[in-house]
Amino acid sequence: MTWTSLMPSINIPHVRPCQGGVRSFRSLVGQWWAARGIMAGMNTAALSPEPGQVWAHVGQPFAPRPYDVVVLGAGRMGSAFAFYLRQLAPHLRLLLLEEGGLPNEDGATLLAPGLWTAWGVPEDRLAQARWTRDQLEMAFGDISFQTRPLIELFARDGEDRTSAAGSLAPHPDALAMVDVTALPFARVDAGAATYRPGALALAAAQTAVKAGADLMLNARAHAVPGSEAGGSVVIERLSVTNTHQIVVHETHRLRAGTLVLALGAGGPHAAEHDLGCHTTHARAYRQTPRLNVPSTDNTPTLRAAGLTLRPQNGGWTLIPAVHHRDPHGYAPTGGHLTGVPTGLRRETLEDLVALMGALPPLGTGALGLGRSISDVPGAWLALPGGRADGLPLHQTLSGGVHLLMGGPHADTLGLAVAYDLAAAVAGVEERPWAGGAPE
Amino acid sequence: MTWTSLMPSINIPHVRPCQGGVRSFRSLVGQWWAARGIMAGMNTAALSPEPGQVWAHVGQPFAPRPYDVVVLGAGRMGSAFAFYLRQLAPHLRLLLLEEGGLPNEDGATLLAPGLWTAWGVPEDRLAQARWTRDQLEMAFGDISFQTRPLIELFARDGEDRTSAAGSLAPHPDALAMVDVTALPFARVDAGAATYRPGALALAAAQTAVKAGADLMLNARAHAVPGSEAGGSVVIERLSVTNTHQIVVHETHRLRAGTLVLALGAGGPHAAEHDLGCHTTHARAYRQTPRLNVPSTDNTPTLRAAGLTLRPQNGGWTLIPAVHHRDPHGYAPTGGHLTGVPTGLRRETLEDLVALMGALPPLGTGALGLGRSISDVPGAWLALPGGRADGLPLHQTLSGGVHLLMGGPHADTLGLAVAYDLAAAVAGVEERPWAGGAPE
Repeated sequence: MTWTSLMPSINIPHVRPCQGGVRSFRSLVGQWWAARGIMAGMNTAALSPEPGQVWAHVGQPFAPRPYDVVVLGAGRMGSAFAFYLRQLAPHLRLLLLEEGGLPNEDGATLLAPGLWTAWGVPEDRLAQARWTRDQLEMAFGDISFQTRPLIELFARDGEDRTSAAGSLAPHPDALAMVDVTALPFARVDAGAATYRPGALALAAAQTAVKAGADLMLNARAHAVPGSEAGGSVVIERLSVTNTHQIVVHETHRLRAGTLVLALGAGGPHAAEHDLGCHTTHARAYRQTPRLNVPSTDNTPTLRAAGLTLRPQNGGWTLIPAVHHRDPHGYAPTGGHLTGVPTGLRRETLEDLVALMGALPPLGTGALGLGRSISDVPGAWLALPGGRADGLPLHQTLSGGVHLLMGGPHADTLGLAVAYDLAAAVAGVEERPWAGGAPE
Repeated sequence: MTWTSLMPSINIPHVRPCQGGVRSFRSLVGQWWAARGIMAGMNTAALSPEPGQVWAHVGQPFAPRPYDVVVLGAGRMGSAFAFYLRQLAPHLRLLLLEEGGLPNEDGATLLAPGLWTAWGVPEDRLAQARWTRDQLEMAFGDISFQTRPLIELFARDGEDRTSAAGSLAPHPDALAMVDVTALPFARVDAGAATYRPGALALAAAQTAVKAGADLMLNARAHAVPGSEAGGSVVIERLSVTNTHQIVVHETHRLRAGTLVLALGAGGPHAAEHDLGCHTTHARAYRQTPRLNVPSTDNTPTLRAAGLTLRPQNGGWTLIPAVHHRDPHGYAPTGGHLTGVPTGLRRETLEDLVALMGALPPLGTGALGLGRSISDVPGAWLALPGGRADGLPLHQTLSGGVHLLMGGPHADTLGLAVAYDLAAAVAGVEERPWAGGAPE
């Protein structure tokens, strides 16, 4: 975790890269929450229902109080769970804990593609995927949601495929990315959409707080198994020294009847290390390099050989295929391209090299290769069931303790799975999509 | 590379672990070659045809001479290539180089299962597989070859499957390994066989030397691309200091019209680093833990869920499934089992834990888990084409420079591929199996 992760990082570009010490950090956080109508650590805002408390930094005193539900992790899965639980069970006292900012700068949420597509969704989960899409469009305010076609390109013909040149013709900026003689066939998901998962997590957490959830940032939490249902949580409130070191300022211990581990790729490790629950989940380190070729809000998302090219901020973000888990003990490292060090891991580099003929801009200086691993954005991605195509899931680890995971398909199915767990905790039988509960 | 890898390690258990300094190392090597009728560095033995020279240590002076073919790596693939090339083209002057002993203690040959089976061999390669089996049985003297059934166990019924209890009934020691209520179905490869790949490599190299090939051990070699066909090789002759450090004693440079990179899992790196040839090959670190449950020479080999259990030396050697490549930069590390450190990598540990119910001895102290990675034998396995089921292959990197790789199916197809390359280098069209050249 870096010092920058100690502050909320969405929509406040003027604080990145961060300057100054603890003083400016605290004041920025205060301004940020104030601007959104939630005074940090104070219940002064006149909202209805009474908003929850927020502890953004250790200067705000925290006295443990009873909670019914404690959520570890305020990425999009934990935040969405909190969002839905406030709707479904407003009587349950809820605390949301997050080690970093909202969302965590080191987490997978910020780097998720934010690409909704029905492709790859099993038939029996399509109703949930469609419900998730409706929620993304309407339930969270402005999260940059927009319908944006996804065009997948192929070297060979096949079912549902048409001409790549024809499909790309209305989109000259997308057409300029592709050698259509190498990839002459295409299929189109006209119902695909894009949005910003980081903005979703922020909106979900903020709305949950407005609806009465408490939230503590910069709080590292560990579950401790209990003899009865639920368990305890040890909370370490983190602070930052003048030399930018993260230190534990104070420690608290809470009990709750329900714990939700929404720790992304860290969830399985926490389940095993803290609770002794062995799982088959795994993780992979995914980098999302930048391709500095122009795009607009109307440029479609492209996909070829597992690589997704997502128009973003006037350029493209590349989302490489995840082929399989990374082994335990793997430390991400940059690869070499014919002797030249790069910031991209070798496996991704090989995939991009293989596509340079079909997608010529990949072979130019427009690709942000970097020189070391820290030059290219990347995050650990949870792989539910240890599978590169694992679907989001929740799972009961012990009585009252639940693991909640997003993973590669969280963009398309994450909200439904978060809702499903919230409904289960709330004791609600109905689901808003056709077909009932997932799995 | 460790100091112990500086000496031949097959059939001389009394020199492991090694004691003493350079003096005893040299004398042991001398005794070893003398006992086999090849005096190191001397052409005194009265063999026909005139045997090649052997340089086992830097005390034996080497003056570069012209070679037609230089092989980098005397594992089973490089040794087998040399063996066949002496048969097919005795006029070609041949040098075999090996960084360690014969075979290298750190290489994959010594830890290969030595399990021949037709399962997993594509239809069009079966003739090669059968030819390889005949060669293993007859061409290399005593390499502990024996027909030994392979019994694969399943939880569910399927094609060609019979009763596990019935298949195991004649083998009480194998039956004792299995809970046949968990794995009630089986199929049997009655034509499977086992042998010792390390003994094969040693026999192939020794026979090649007897037939005129030169051999240098403790010689680290790098290919250097040439402007004409073939290339140059830089040879670093390695020595060991009194403090057991490996040092370069002297360096030579040779030219040859044909270079063969038979460096196992290190081949693709050498191709790219030394020659600038980018390949799609990869590697994985495979550990082969010991299971100390009794077996005999008549005990069949077992397989379940990708795990192979090979009777060996009165116990069992476990050969775990390789699911996929390891990422670049991965350093093998031991995993934890509910907090207890082990020498087995986490992924293998998970596979074994999943099988403990069906194979109860895995859940006992008979399994050699170790405490750190160095406690469990393991080696980097080449994955041709980057695939966990990649077949052995050879490939031309540039004019006269060939990459030769074994990998997961080297036990069954390696000799045919080594022969095929030797025949290609010799200019021989015919192949001794039906169906012609591989691929």
